[in-house]
Amino acid sequence: MVVSLFISIRNQGLHNITPKIESRVHQADIEEGLCTLFIKHTSASLVIQENADPSAKQDLEAWLNRLVTENDPLYTHTLEGPDDMPAHIKNVLTATSISIPIQKGRLALGIWQGIYLWEHRHSGGEREIVVHIGN
Amino acid sequence: MVVSLFISIRNQGLHNITPKIESRVHQADIEEGLCTLFIKHTSASLVIQENADPSAKQDLEAWLNRLVTENDPLYTHTLEGPDDMPAHIKNVLTATSISIPIQKGRLALGIWQGIYLWEHRHSGGEREIVVHIGN
Amino acid sequence: MVVSLFISIRNQGLHNITPKIESRVHQADIEEGLCTLFIKHTSASLVIQENADPSAKQDLEAWLNRLVTENDPLYTHTLEGPDDMPAHIKNVLTATSISIPIQKGRLALGIWQGIYLWEHRHSGGEREIVVHIGN
Repeated sequence: MVVSLFISIRNQGLHNITPKIESRVHQADIEEGLCTLFIKHTSASLVIQENADPSAKQDLEAWLNRLVTENDPLYTHTLEGPDDMPAHIKNVLTATSISIPIQKGRLALGIWQGIYLWEHRHSGGEREIVVHIGN
Repeated sequence: MVVSLFISIRNQGLHNITPKIESRVHQADIEEGLCTLFIKHTSASLVIQENADPSAKQDLEAWLNRLVTENDPLYTHTLEGPDDMPAHIKNVLTATSISIPIQKGRLALGIWQGIYLWEHRHSGGEREIVVHIGN
Repeated sequence: MVVSLFISIRNQGLHNITPKIESRVHQADIEEGLCTLFIKHTSASLVIQENADPSAKQDLEAWLNRLVTENDPLYTHTLEGPDDMPAHIKNVLTATSISIPIQKGRLALGIWQGIYLWEHRHSGGEREIVVHIGN
């Protein structure tokens, strides 16, 4: 099964998409298998992160924003705005695809794990994630 | 086939888990396919790295420890200890899932490639990796 | 289906391999599925990046070269040349495997996405990528 999910994003940062993915796995109705997520963009990415304390999410965003700064004099790719080249770099340092096994009909996530879409642009927009569920 | 592997870790750093994964692939007894590893934690991760000279492993650990320091004044997520927030960041910079094709009944690893669990906490503990093997 | 692709690389940097992968997906002739790429090396890696403006590619290379410098006094793994240890670190910060769903018989890439082999050594050489295509 391959389906596209369209997610509306309003701002930079980590957005929890776990319930949307779990719902697709539930619909697929398979006992064991593999669920693969792929994001069709180069300025947003996928990560699995702690879903409990929001301070972990905030620190993660702040740390990466400090490492990959806007208006770095090194950049020549500046026509699409000051947040575009940092977005491409952050995309490469995180993940474009993630695969999660399905056990007993559910995603085999750890108890503290959530699936996040990490929007790296300030403005956001509609993002598309393609979900593959197989045996 | 989906199985959980439980791995006892005593200290921070790269731990070679290649033989444990190869053993599962051998049991699966398939000629061609795909083996996907998923780690159920946000403070330990998976990497494929050089398995020959231990100095490569040491430098990799030292480099990442210098990039992602403990007690960074940026952190607000500090209740779980000084090594917790750096562990989440290191997790995001490396990988939570890795997929390796199976060719002629074996993992298609390069001659110098080993599969490592990278423990980012100092104390370690028991870590769970879920292995999916499919056609 | 599991096949090896051999790619000759002459220099450090991002090399577009999208047509080579698309060609294999076309040969596989399946409507829906998953295409997984795995690189059998620890000093070259895989990324999905913007395929439009070459300045994005150049900035990405320059940024990572600045973050992971050669001749860092931290390195002890120096016998294989000044570009070897940086290559291993860059490999870990990017990806060894990437999975892309197949929709309507084609890779579900975004319009601006290209698949790149990122050579981290200066000299290059022949690199092997193993491609798995499944349902």
